Amino acid sequence: MTYCVAVGLQAGLVLCSDSRTSAGADQVSTYSKMHRFQWPDRLLVLLSSGNLGTTQAVVSQLRRATEADGGDSLRTLGGLHEVAEHVGQVSVEQQNKHSNPDGQSSFSPDASFLLAGQIRGEPPGVYLVYPQGNFITPSEATPYLQIGETKYGKPILDRMLTPQTSLDDAAKCVLVSMDSTMRSNATVGPPVELLSYAADSFAAPRYLKLDADSEQLLALRRHWAERIAEAMGLLPPVRWDG
Amino acid sequence: MTYCVAVGLQAGLVLCSDSRTSAGADQVSTYSKMHRFQWPDRLLVLLSSGNLGTTQAVVSQLRRATEADGGDSLRTLGGLHEVAEHVGQVSVEQQNKHSNPDGQSSFSPDASFLLAGQIRGEPPGVYLVYPQGNFITPSEATPYLQIGETKYGKPILDRMLTPQTSLDDAAKCVLVSMDSTMRSNATVGPPVELLSYAADSFAAPRYLKLDADSEQLLALRRHWAERIAEAMGLLPPVRWDG
Repeated sequence: MTYCVAVGLQAGLVLCSDSRTSAGADQVSTYSKMHRFQWPDRLLVLLSSGNLGTTQAVVSQLRRATEADGGDSLRTLGGLHEVAEHVGQVSVEQQNKHSNPDGQSSFSPDASFLLAGQIRGEPPGVYLVYPQGNFITPSEATPYLQIGETKYGKPILDRMLTPQTSLDDAAKCVLVSMDSTMRSNATVGPPVELLSYAADSFAAPRYLKLDADSEQLLALRRHWAERIAEAMGLLPPVRWDG
Repeated sequence: MTYCVAVGLQAGLVLCSDSRTSAGADQVSTYSKMHRFQWPDRLLVLLSSGNLGTTQAVVSQLRRATEADGGDSLRTLGGLHEVAEHVGQVSVEQQNKHSNPDGQSSFSPDASFLLAGQIRGEPPGVYLVYPQGNFITPSEATPYLQIGETKYGKPILDRMLTPQTSLDDAAKCVLVSMDSTMRSNATVGPPVELLSYAADSFAAPRYLKLDADSEQLLALRRHWAERIAEAMGLLPPVRWDG
């Protein structure tokens, strides 16, 4: 399993991903799911979930296309929308290599991607590319997209994030969301990768990788538990008369 | 879908259930999922999820058994463990009437139950009865059990509840957990039923039914959003140097 989240704010982008890959409970490995592509006119980040064979093949093919002379690639396409289409096409192509049309096997080559970034001339954007290759963007009401084990970490995002949220607040929020998910699903695990990109900067984003024994991750968990307990204490008691 | 949670504390029991029943998005109804049985020596509460035909048949058969002369029933069995077995047997019996052994239909008569209560001579207890009729109890580390759409509302329970939590704090906590779930899953909805039972009281439990436009539910949502925003503000900022 996997948990990745990408937030699109007026101030820029905040992304977070876990690194646990599992093919059964006895085959657990650590792979980065955050793939960064940067050129002077653009920053593009892909977060991946699903079949590891597929996601590795997709990222590899996307990267090779950027190194080829001519043709569409992450480096040459004119807008984020076109990049999302490109990612979807490559993903479907790779999945089709290993799909089982008779549906007799439980194997699934499906993969999903979050694409976030900015190309000069456009505002920053976030896309979720489904295994079928089609894609969606976030809305004003929910300025984020998730892939993988999305449920445990969703309520805190819903209660906190608006397009006006600052990059710093969103970074704290997605870390809490990730921590909630790691506590509840053993197949989501550290290292946690966190990335924050200021809109229109086209500079290297801020980036952080937090290991399982990271003092910052442990402190966040402790602090948040204390703050939540205080918040619960401040909530007015239930009135049993209605 | 459904969301029900039952918390077993040193101080007693706190239960919460939603009331939405759906057979497809265009067939949504409201049914109570909290079924209370009380006699001078015992309080027993069942929370139900799954096929509505099955849960109604199970509750009806359990109730009729309590009115019959002789035989095992919620009224006569000597302990909560035996009551959980009884609920499991009746549930399996009712499911078997409508199961499709060839597995060709997508119809499922499955039902799950949370059983919570106290029988004189025993401490209060909580059981989760699976569709197969077997059952589990909570642990010290996680003093609660859930059925239905369990994921959205789980992190707040994990961060807040211990066996030492007070009944009042647990009531607030399960309401927040329910509110988080209703926000995220449209097939979980009001009225919300809340019940709190003080250990060894054998008196009528405190009970509350909150409709969609309940001022208390709306105030809780507003207050909690404010408290969470404050808590997030108090969290130390992410240190990007590790």
